[in-house]
Amino acid sequence: MKKTKIKTSEGAKRMGEEPRLIDTDVHNSLNDPKELLPFLPKVWHQQYIESGFEIGGKPFSSVGLVRKDAIPPNGGRPASDPEFLIKHHIDPYNIDYAILTGTPYMNAISLMYDPDYGNALAIAINDWMVEKWLKVDPRYKGSIHVNFSDPVAAVKEIDRMASHPNMVQVIMCSAARLPFGQRYYHSIYEAAERNGLPVAVHPGAEGLGPTHAPTPAGYPTRFMEWENILPLNFMGHINSLVCEGVFEKFPNLKFVAIEGGISWLPHLMWRMDKNYKALRDTVPWLKKLPSQYIKEHVYLTTQPIEEPSDPKHLVQIFEMTGAEDIVMFSSDYAHWDNDNPKMALAPFPRKMKEKIAAKNAMQLYRLYEKVPEGGGVL
Amino acid sequence: MKKTKIKTSEGAKRMGEEPRLIDTDVHNSLNDPKELLPFLPKVWHQQYIESGFEIGGKPFSSVGLVRKDAIPPNGGRPASDPEFLIKHHIDPYNIDYAILTGTPYMNAISLMYDPDYGNALAIAINDWMVEKWLKVDPRYKGSIHVNFSDPVAAVKEIDRMASHPNMVQVIMCSAARLPFGQRYYHSIYEAAERNGLPVAVHPGAEGLGPTHAPTPAGYPTRFMEWENILPLNFMGHINSLVCEGVFEKFPNLKFVAIEGGISWLPHLMWRMDKNYKALRDTVPWLKKLPSQYIKEHVYLTTQPIEEPSDPKHLVQIFEMTGAEDIVMFSSDYAHWDNDNPKMALAPFPRKMKEKIAAKNAMQLYRLYEKVPEGGGVL
Repeated sequence: MKKTKIKTSEGAKRMGEEPRLIDTDVHNSLNDPKELLPFLPKVWHQQYIESGFEIGGKPFSSVGLVRKDAIPPNGGRPASDPEFLIKHHIDPYNIDYAILTGTPYMNAISLMYDPDYGNALAIAINDWMVEKWLKVDPRYKGSIHVNFSDPVAAVKEIDRMASHPNMVQVIMCSAARLPFGQRYYHSIYEAAERNGLPVAVHPGAEGLGPTHAPTPAGYPTRFMEWENILPLNFMGHINSLVCEGVFEKFPNLKFVAIEGGISWLPHLMWRMDKNYKALRDTVPWLKKLPSQYIKEHVYLTTQPIEEPSDPKHLVQIFEMTGAEDIVMFSSDYAHWDNDNPKMALAPFPRKMKEKIAAKNAMQLYRLYEKVPEGGGVL
Repeated sequence: MKKTKIKTSEGAKRMGEEPRLIDTDVHNSLNDPKELLPFLPKVWHQQYIESGFEIGGKPFSSVGLVRKDAIPPNGGRPASDPEFLIKHHIDPYNIDYAILTGTPYMNAISLMYDPDYGNALAIAINDWMVEKWLKVDPRYKGSIHVNFSDPVAAVKEIDRMASHPNMVQVIMCSAARLPFGQRYYHSIYEAAERNGLPVAVHPGAEGLGPTHAPTPAGYPTRFMEWENILPLNFMGHINSLVCEGVFEKFPNLKFVAIEGGISWLPHLMWRMDKNYKALRDTVPWLKKLPSQYIKEHVYLTTQPIEEPSDPKHLVQIFEMTGAEDIVMFSSDYAHWDNDNPKMALAPFPRKMKEKIAAKNAMQLYRLYEKVPEGGGVL
């Protein structure tokens, strides 16, 4: 079925062969928690059956979390059947590639109190991802789950999984005890860079388990308040990544901030750049304006894209930050607030829309050619 | 010297009598820590002499913190001589009113481990402010320091000081253990509203003493990284104030976010409004879009104003958020990064500039008429 891939950095140049729509955040789920057991060593079964992915402290309900119409015909959890997900989401929108990101509770394995349990879950999730999803359809691309609470094990797992041709990135939860720029994480970045894989982070566990308060002001009281403010964590991490010089140390590393918002870019970029002019002696390893590192190394995904009452304001935000080159479409399927690509991308002029819909993800994930099953046309 | 004040909400209408430049963040300082002793009960002298305003955990230097040329001719700390401050800062820029905000370490008295010590410091600072500063020049307006770690005492202190005609707001540090929307603080807001005083917050102690990490990602490592990310705390607090319904409960309360940045407004407003449409059942007390509460109740100050390479981008941010009606000029004198009003306000068209330079602060602080000593002309 597969054509020979064109591996040059230029990508396929012939018209109609490039992907036109890549969805960079599709939450493939377990049908039932027990589905993971065959991939998990028996020594962990008891713990998994009793506590699963629980990290503690979930303080509010989240409107059901997932779309009920995403439940497969044979039952089970939404987005848990690879064939039905194709019919329900991939085919209707002509999505060329879907980057599978697991679920937020899978991403959060780095927050297990027991790092060995987190490591075992990482391996089980990755083997399940390959076996149950990546074999089903060439449009599926996977994310390598790692447990950042044990960087040595995380590096091992990256090296174990990176050779799989359909694993396209490393994924971790954005909730953390240490900002992502700190040296603690550098071996993970070294392994990702060496294997040509971006490192993605996904929110959902902010303030839970052994993490910090989800805002510097403390703990929100309601789901809406918590959801509004998730991007703070992304700003904190990206500020740390840039200031700590991660992108000087790992010049080919790309960082993907999934589902963390976009329109805060002007503020963060301008504030960092202004401070850099006065305080660059505190970060002597930086050789460019901080915003330049963001433009060259950080990718953001669209969902939940901001929706100002005047859509041209969003386009202005993109124009003032160069966001058109670093933002990638994501649906967040099948979460309650997932985006329809036609509506999410409606505000953008054509060239900007093409980049966001596919070109940026095509370059980042080296998916230069669509597979016959694909055919995204917005 | 003083003319009769025009107290109508309309303010003075005759040309040339309204203030033209109000500086909403001037850091008047103690000349020497001992200057506070006469205002502090003897029982606290030993503690004050040994630890002063120390709250612990200051992790990095901040380029000297204050301008060396602001040291008074007779020595002592910068910005500690009311007469010299007039000569060095107020007169050269023709500032009509300077809102004195004390110093960040004074604002942070709410973070003392001992609430009684914090209460004693609040009283001492306020008495010192009146005695040493507000009597010197009618252009000085003061901020009532309170210790939010003891809300009952804070209410008492607001009621004690509010009748002073030159105290124009309540001030607290933005670093806190609980987001400012929570019920813990409501008696303070009730007292401020009842006395017609805005509540202002000022940064500087984020991550210090008994506060949360200054980012949800943890603790920054360097001063620039910390300084870049201070506004996260303001976003968290404002999100909390709106979501908790503080501005429904206290419809005349105004909240002043000093030195917390501006250009994050589009993101926060749009994200809150989008989520409100889907999640308003979790905040049933809200009757308007969240952004509307910000526009009606929250004021921001300029310094350190964002400086994009293309200044028109900042104007666009103002246009898309209505910031021209809620942003007030501040110099942050005599801190290292303080702003010159001519440069800070240069990007704005005339009408916008007039509002930011004085009109918004004039309305908020009811300073409808300039005093003869003033005469701000930008």
